[in-house]
Amino acid sequence: MNITVQKFGGTSVGTPERIKAVADRVSELKKTTPHIVVVVSAMGDTTDELIALSHRISETPNPREYDALISTGENISAALLAMALQNLGVLAISLTGPQAGVATSGHYGRSKIVDVDTKRILHELSLGNVVVVTGFQGINDALDVTTIGRGGSDTSAVVLAAALGAGVCEIFTDVDGVYTTDPRKVKSASKLSEISYEEMLELASLGAKVLHPRAVECAKENGIVIHVRSSFDRVEGTLVKEAAAMEVNRPVTGVTMNEDEAQISILNIPDSPGVAGQIFSELADAAVNVDMIIQTVQENGFNKISFTVSVDDLQQAKTVTSNVGARLKASGVQFDDAIAKISIVGVGMMSKPGVAAKFFKTLGDNGINIRMISTSEIKVSCVIDKADGPRALELLHAVFELDRL
Amino acid sequence: MNITVQKFGGTSVGTPERIKAVADRVSELKKTTPHIVVVVSAMGDTTDELIALSHRISETPNPREYDALISTGENISAALLAMALQNLGVLAISLTGPQAGVATSGHYGRSKIVDVDTKRILHELSLGNVVVVTGFQGINDALDVTTIGRGGSDTSAVVLAAALGAGVCEIFTDVDGVYTTDPRKVKSASKLSEISYEEMLELASLGAKVLHPRAVECAKENGIVIHVRSSFDRVEGTLVKEAAAMEVNRPVTGVTMNEDEAQISILNIPDSPGVAGQIFSELADAAVNVDMIIQTVQENGFNKISFTVSVDDLQQAKTVTSNVGARLKASGVQFDDAIAKISIVGVGMMSKPGVAAKFFKTLGDNGINIRMISTSEIKVSCVIDKADGPRALELLHAVFELDRL
Repeated sequence: MNITVQKFGGTSVGTPERIKAVADRVSELKKTTPHIVVVVSAMGDTTDELIALSHRISETPNPREYDALISTGENISAALLAMALQNLGVLAISLTGPQAGVATSGHYGRSKIVDVDTKRILHELSLGNVVVVTGFQGINDALDVTTIGRGGSDTSAVVLAAALGAGVCEIFTDVDGVYTTDPRKVKSASKLSEISYEEMLELASLGAKVLHPRAVECAKENGIVIHVRSSFDRVEGTLVKEAAAMEVNRPVTGVTMNEDEAQISILNIPDSPGVAGQIFSELADAAVNVDMIIQTVQENGFNKISFTVSVDDLQQAKTVTSNVGARLKASGVQFDDAIAKISIVGVGMMSKPGVAAKFFKTLGDNGINIRMISTSEIKVSCVIDKADGPRALELLHAVFELDRL
Repeated sequence: MNITVQKFGGTSVGTPERIKAVADRVSELKKTTPHIVVVVSAMGDTTDELIALSHRISETPNPREYDALISTGENISAALLAMALQNLGVLAISLTGPQAGVATSGHYGRSKIVDVDTKRILHELSLGNVVVVTGFQGINDALDVTTIGRGGSDTSAVVLAAALGAGVCEIFTDVDGVYTTDPRKVKSASKLSEISYEEMLELASLGAKVLHPRAVECAKENGIVIHVRSSFDRVEGTLVKEAAAMEVNRPVTGVTMNEDEAQISILNIPDSPGVAGQIFSELADAAVNVDMIIQTVQENGFNKISFTVSVDDLQQAKTVTSNVGARLKASGVQFDDAIAKISIVGVGMMSKPGVAAKFFKTLGDNGINIRMISTSEIKVSCVIDKADGPRALELLHAVFELDRL
């Protein structure tokens, strides 16, 4: 059975009118494609509204009940989409995660999908139904509903595609694909026709919200091609797939800017073993995620440690760092949230030397000071002054010829 | 295991604050009562909002999807109540109809509960949990969620009480019991400490909205005492139970007035067999429910047929009646919605002659004209002019000494 899996996100099913538009689209596809599984998120802000409701009851709602509560959002959108399809004369049925055989394990709120018993889905498909499956949820061994973490409907769709032997999973969203950089920031941003799993993972972890990183990892593990495309028009989007010959042609696939980090520096720390370990385990204990870290030896022989955190965590990080700084007898702690992190991503840079150098030189030639650097095999990131951010983004986008893709 | 079953309606769980108040009450009971099952309706207008949503998708939504949709209202309130109980340190768990083992059969939207597999409920009770069960829903043989009709949460609660061997089912609502008549209409209305199933059924079918008739029938069949009481105060309510010696003491238990019916008369119909059958089967085909029917012979030898319908059905009834009247060569059709139906209900009237006579005499002595009469073993109803309704209600309430109960 050749099965097509499509996923529509919260914006795509945000109103009854949009649900009808999705039904139109699926109904059109049904004319040429006999077996369609559609995965849906909750309508627009439904999940947030349910979360707000739970917090009016309890600041720390019980995780099992929380999952039972917030999973109802997807039940609503799935039933409505099935109704809308039937209204167009298309046979359709909605299935909840439990009904669709999506087995989960692990903690409520962040379960993993461990198996899909496809029996019911295949039966409904064989009856000619479009099968609408609720994303984001499954059933655990205790026969209770669990959710798999926010953004999890992408993962649900990819897992179902894998379980059903679908080669492609189409993810419909409010943008028409993956771009070389944020089109709202750089006008010449161009849409990528394809991107490798690895690059997509880097872009996603750098803050590109187009796909959930877990969904990309899951697609990579199962060899599922993800087609990211717009639910509002019919143009082809971006294929996320195994890196092929394409990396030869382009060393850099995308440039990103993150303006939501802050830099913290601890000055004049004695150079003794275990100091860095102490600082960062105390931050971890306080649930502060640290991104880039640099340790430098100052002229006086003492060390300086700088790192970046999300601005959301800055207050918490300030408290922890000031305490640990005082205990280590550091001379002071500095905070700066006027920074931007610029990153280039591309599997091609592994085989093309000089990409990082070109990045640094471009910034230097234009008088942009680099404060911190971090690299991975397929990524280079620099922290610069926030004021220089937009200009750096434009310059790098042009230098790496991303407007010509 | 001695189990207490309580049901809280939509108003009682209408807001997070009210859910917390319900949790307070259950938590207090838990101190003295080890095994509690709580059945909940959806919060306030949730079900109506979900219905409105479905109608924005389709005028005739698919019944299976409609049930999948509207049953989410109870899932939300049950999860929130479980959270609220846990917040007070009370062990609690919410179970959906399917999880609670509520097996249904028949049409979507109006299924019957055919069985309850109490395994999971008993297990959760044995762990010390208050078990919060969604009313209104169950699971059919296809493993799909079905709903059991509006007002069905009352029935869910009574069925669970029967399955769990609870002798009493407490139904918490927004009134504090069953009254001799509507307290908003007659100030001297008094609360009944008990009422028989039969009387409650008559009152419910006459429009008293305090209990759903199916729940009463189900309680009668299973010998479950229903305790109707207010969720907003702690006073004892009304026990609905087997008629005992009480009927000796009071011939009449309640008086009701229904102002939502209209009278239709077809004049000068030829007196030939099958005429009435034709009229009422055409009305039935048009889904018009007919209440009272009277056929009289006119002075000219022709027949006159009068009947009452709900004002909601009046337009439809007018069309059908005019058509059939013309075909029967009746001389005309009259419509009148300025009527009131006054009824007295009481199992005691079976053994006390003269109750109906006293009813008619009271109206006659006060110059109130009776247009139609219908009687059952435990009920007498009269249609009168709407303008006389409130006065008739007051008079009858006093004559049958209902203010002295």
